[in-house]
Amino acid sequence: MASNITQKLIQSHLLSGEMIPGTEIGLRIDQTLTQDATGTMVMLELEAMGLERAKTEASAQYVDHNLIQVDSKNPDDHLFLQSATRRFGLYYSRPGNGVSHPVHMQRLAKPGKTLLGSDSHTCANGCMGMLAMGAGGLDVALAIAGEPFYVKMPQVWGIKLTGELPDWVSAKDVILELLRRYDVKGGVGKVIEYYGPGVDTLSAMDRHVIANMGAELGATGTVFPSDHEIRRFLKEQGRKDDWIELVPDADAKYDLTDEINLSELEPLIAKPSSPGNVVSVSEVAGTPIYQSYIGSSANPGFRDFAIAAEIVKGKHIAEGISFDINPTSRQMLTDLVKESHIASLLQSGARLHQAGCNGCIGMGQAPATGRNSLRTTPRNFPGRSGTREDSVYLCSPETAAVSALTGKITDPRTMDFSYPNVKEPNYPTIDVNLLEAPLPYEEAKNVQLVKGPNIASIPSMDELHDQMELPILLKMGDNISTDEILAGGARVLPYRSNLPEISKFTFEIIDRTYYTRGKETVDQGGHAVVGGFNYGQGSSREHAALAPRYLGLRVALVKDFARIHWQNLVNFGVLPLTFVNPDDYDMLNQGDILQLSNVRTIIKQVSEFTIGIKGREQKIKVKHTLSERQVEVMLAGGMINWVKSRQKIAE
Amino acid sequence: MASNITQKLIQSHLLSGEMIPGTEIGLRIDQTLTQDATGTMVMLELEAMGLERAKTEASAQYVDHNLIQVDSKNPDDHLFLQSATRRFGLYYSRPGNGVSHPVHMQRLAKPGKTLLGSDSHTCANGCMGMLAMGAGGLDVALAIAGEPFYVKMPQVWGIKLTGELPDWVSAKDVILELLRRYDVKGGVGKVIEYYGPGVDTLSAMDRHVIANMGAELGATGTVFPSDHEIRRFLKEQGRKDDWIELVPDADAKYDLTDEINLSELEPLIAKPSSPGNVVSVSEVAGTPIYQSYIGSSANPGFRDFAIAAEIVKGKHIAEGISFDINPTSRQMLTDLVKESHIASLLQSGARLHQAGCNGCIGMGQAPATGRNSLRTTPRNFPGRSGTREDSVYLCSPETAAVSALTGKITDPRTMDFSYPNVKEPNYPTIDVNLLEAPLPYEEAKNVQLVKGPNIASIPSMDELHDQMELPILLKMGDNISTDEILAGGARVLPYRSNLPEISKFTFEIIDRTYYTRGKETVDQGGHAVVGGFNYGQGSSREHAALAPRYLGLRVALVKDFARIHWQNLVNFGVLPLTFVNPDDYDMLNQGDILQLSNVRTIIKQVSEFTIGIKGREQKIKVKHTLSERQVEVMLAGGMINWVKSRQKIAE
Repeated sequence: MASNITQKLIQSHLLSGEMIPGTEIGLRIDQTLTQDATGTMVMLELEAMGLERAKTEASAQYVDHNLIQVDSKNPDDHLFLQSATRRFGLYYSRPGNGVSHPVHMQRLAKPGKTLLGSDSHTCANGCMGMLAMGAGGLDVALAIAGEPFYVKMPQVWGIKLTGELPDWVSAKDVILELLRRYDVKGGVGKVIEYYGPGVDTLSAMDRHVIANMGAELGATGTVFPSDHEIRRFLKEQGRKDDWIELVPDADAKYDLTDEINLSELEPLIAKPSSPGNVVSVSEVAGTPIYQSYIGSSANPGFRDFAIAAEIVKGKHIAEGISFDINPTSRQMLTDLVKESHIASLLQSGARLHQAGCNGCIGMGQAPATGRNSLRTTPRNFPGRSGTREDSVYLCSPETAAVSALTGKITDPRTMDFSYPNVKEPNYPTIDVNLLEAPLPYEEAKNVQLVKGPNIASIPSMDELHDQMELPILLKMGDNISTDEILAGGARVLPYRSNLPEISKFTFEIIDRTYYTRGKETVDQGGHAVVGGFNYGQGSSREHAALAPRYLGLRVALVKDFARIHWQNLVNFGVLPLTFVNPDDYDMLNQGDILQLSNVRTIIKQVSEFTIGIKGREQKIKVKHTLSERQVEVMLAGGMINWVKSRQKIAE
Repeated sequence: MASNITQKLIQSHLLSGEMIPGTEIGLRIDQTLTQDATGTMVMLELEAMGLERAKTEASAQYVDHNLIQVDSKNPDDHLFLQSATRRFGLYYSRPGNGVSHPVHMQRLAKPGKTLLGSDSHTCANGCMGMLAMGAGGLDVALAIAGEPFYVKMPQVWGIKLTGELPDWVSAKDVILELLRRYDVKGGVGKVIEYYGPGVDTLSAMDRHVIANMGAELGATGTVFPSDHEIRRFLKEQGRKDDWIELVPDADAKYDLTDEINLSELEPLIAKPSSPGNVVSVSEVAGTPIYQSYIGSSANPGFRDFAIAAEIVKGKHIAEGISFDINPTSRQMLTDLVKESHIASLLQSGARLHQAGCNGCIGMGQAPATGRNSLRTTPRNFPGRSGTREDSVYLCSPETAAVSALTGKITDPRTMDFSYPNVKEPNYPTIDVNLLEAPLPYEEAKNVQLVKGPNIASIPSMDELHDQMELPILLKMGDNISTDEILAGGARVLPYRSNLPEISKFTFEIIDRTYYTRGKETVDQGGHAVVGGFNYGQGSSREHAALAPRYLGLRVALVKDFARIHWQNLVNFGVLPLTFVNPDDYDMLNQGDILQLSNVRTIIKQVSEFTIGIKGREQKIKVKHTLSERQVEVMLAGGMINWVKSRQKIAE
């Protein structure tokens, strides 16, 4: 049968299940990627599992999130991560080497392989003809340990690209167009596969931009073909032997299709505070801005900075604008320096920051209260910038650069100069200086883990209770992001390897009293939360499941879940339930007490059942979508307990 | 009578007093400099005084300390500072433009002028033939308002420089040599004036390095001649008309003298945790390091980065080293980019940070727990790096760069390559993009101050009590720095315009219970602290006086005071007393209650008097060194009250 690329990738890695959309499949994982904000926990999990050596073909630990180092916590984590990568046989990308996604693409990505990463934008490397998926940290730890990755078989959504991007319109506008059409849950349960003649017109890094923000559609992954352009890219990176061709069969089918004519696109922009809130730039033109920000894995390429540099070259940014340049990798920064683009940016008035995620994850460059920030980053969820009541717009580097010049949101097509021609460097820098290769096993086995005073092991957790009376501590609306469940940013991220400390920030954006109220339920059997559609969208950080669990969360009852957060809840033993009838949501209020009986038996036997509300006659029909394996995990109280018990059986 | 440069500068600005060392003089201030960590308070003070327009020749507000922007507090402060500079007619150097001292030197410093700055390293601009002095923020606010600056007439300490620096030894080693000889209070009450043939061999920026760290000797200022080299420098900066010659008269005398033969110097290093803890690099060679850090106003020049770049060019830094490059101004960063030095640094493995103070003030780049950090910064007081138990060494860029290559402290003279030849750019960049000039008055008078939610006005304070019973809440040793009284760093600095919040960090490095214990004394008449020699050394931040005062501190009784902190205590109505007999220090313990009677009358009439200890027979002889004017300030409860009352009299 003729296959599309996604089907080929899945078929060649299928360990269990059938390729029927919506059913669970188990996949062999070839490569993993962890970043520091999630990676310390992954390494603690590997330690807890007693792993001897990584079983993947290549696993890389990047340090890109917590680079500020205002005290010893960040650098202590870096040393811990370095020691763990040495112990377990991983690559270690040192602080300052750049953002995981572009660095992985440049140095390790291989067409035809699977990549699992504890970062929701892991899908970016789908641009290389890989099946690249974000997951919770524990899933990645299991993959490093050689366990399959279990996921619902996705639908394959073929997006046909035709035409060619006009001047002043770039890859970012392609993915913003898809977000304009389908919003932040349009990709849920799907792999987005791009095909058609338009693909040829996009460079590997342009495809990275588009693949990256598949995460904002909630997609399981994004896949581009591995074609002549990927061959060119790998050759340029000194890795031509890593190339294989991977294209869809001639008469390949897709579960769903749509088409984007690149020639018809115009500059687009996502308004505050959702990446799905997309309009054309011309609609909001004239809005005054405080900040213009170029960088992040959503626009990581040499081109993305060079085009901004060419636009501002010889000109001055508007008075009062903070024009922040956040390079994404050292390789690219070096090339941007060599090709004089950094000089052009600086002379226009830009602030140059170190290579890393920085403000994209709230680690610096926060905007002032009540001021508009224009960014090429992938997300604008409330508070993610670091400023509690922020106002962040997402756009292309072209739009960000011209707006820096005018001081207001500006459609780049209205400028009185022609679209600059950006030339990629002929021989781009290859920098492996800060990327440490895995140690040979004989050396690795003797490495001791270096644990600073802020690195605490994961407390043990009890198994699922059979009878539960759970007060609803929060009732929330639609599209609650993991940033709202547990914020990123400089206040919070430094505690990611210290659960008792980080849990203090849980849900604080929504309700500052949650921490105290939650903690009080721990000895009383726990509590529940209620949410709307797309609950847990956004960043893959597993702390957003682990921290509420630590504070007594046992059941999350919502209209539906974002995929990665759902998985994280399962992994940490929080029972994820959805309303059979979404209108029942209206019956529940904060303070109501949910009554669940014989849960241990019921979830083994049925997927739909009813739960009570204390003091009321009405019952609520709920369902779970746990596989048989996941039910076992849930009964054990989470994956760590489950792995532990499996190890006991094996002894 | 023949005069040295310092005497000429003082004579030409003398408004009151006589030039007798140790007596108070009043000086006309031509220029001021504020940075953001101290400047928001200065601007609030200008507002409180009802200032219409700055009365100085040039006053500049720099934003160099708080650039991280992890939330809205820093950027809100930036907008407040910008609005205040526009309102009051000041220069505004925007975030990312660079560190105040080198930027001021490049753009505004003028030989023959006085400069007062709310930053202890203001003395750096003494390299330009200026009398440049650090002071508390309130002193600077008064200077901006046209009031004289009152200071004890310093002794002039002539340091004769002879010879020429050998290879691998640079300006940093000159000032480390002086610190080796005289330690951190060797310059107290003195202006250090350099003269002799060795001065000719030092560039303007080399002199900046030496002048800057006069602050570490506790000096009132550092003065270099304005000679052909300063003329060259100003011409290069496009300001040749700002040059005047200023050299000592042929037979000028100095109150004290010493000599340094530059030819005999070797690479020096200050060990943890005092800048005065100086030994030769060879003595500690081989000590493993975690970090090598180039930057800060103590090594701000193009040369300081270029020499490091030439040393590491074509080589790789040692495994595991964090090699942090913190450029000091945008002008210099642009030149370093253009001359390929940034490319050399990046390719060796360096991390490039934005232009600013950064890690020097604990805003990022903190070292890991228990690891050694090698820095070209001016200070290594405990905790200043951001890491509570840090281990920071201070050295030249040469020593820092070669140690980055070897991974351990290394005497650069032991390397197997020759000393690189660094060429300054022929036409250095002049960047005024982010330096906003004062608005014309007609425009300025209508500007409204922009106050974010974290900017709080200064609470009113009561006058000096006549009868006091003050429990001693802390008894401290020698050399307590303002960093220990009120830390800098990313946790603390964002609250510098919010006294109730920032006071929570007071003395926390010494005793975490001080805040609570202090606050309890506020309604009981306050409390006292006891200290040893050189109390309040280091940063000039006035919050280190204001915050304890807010928590009830009324008397600081010590062996002796560092000058700026003493001034700050007076300004905020804390009575600074010293022991007549330093051995009496041993009589006192934490918890003892000091009894002061008829203080309001006594301090007007005598400088020495006795105070009691509750429940004990012994009395303690103490003295104050307040001038008549300062006694009035003290009785009023501080300078703000005093200025207010003067304004009432004027009405």
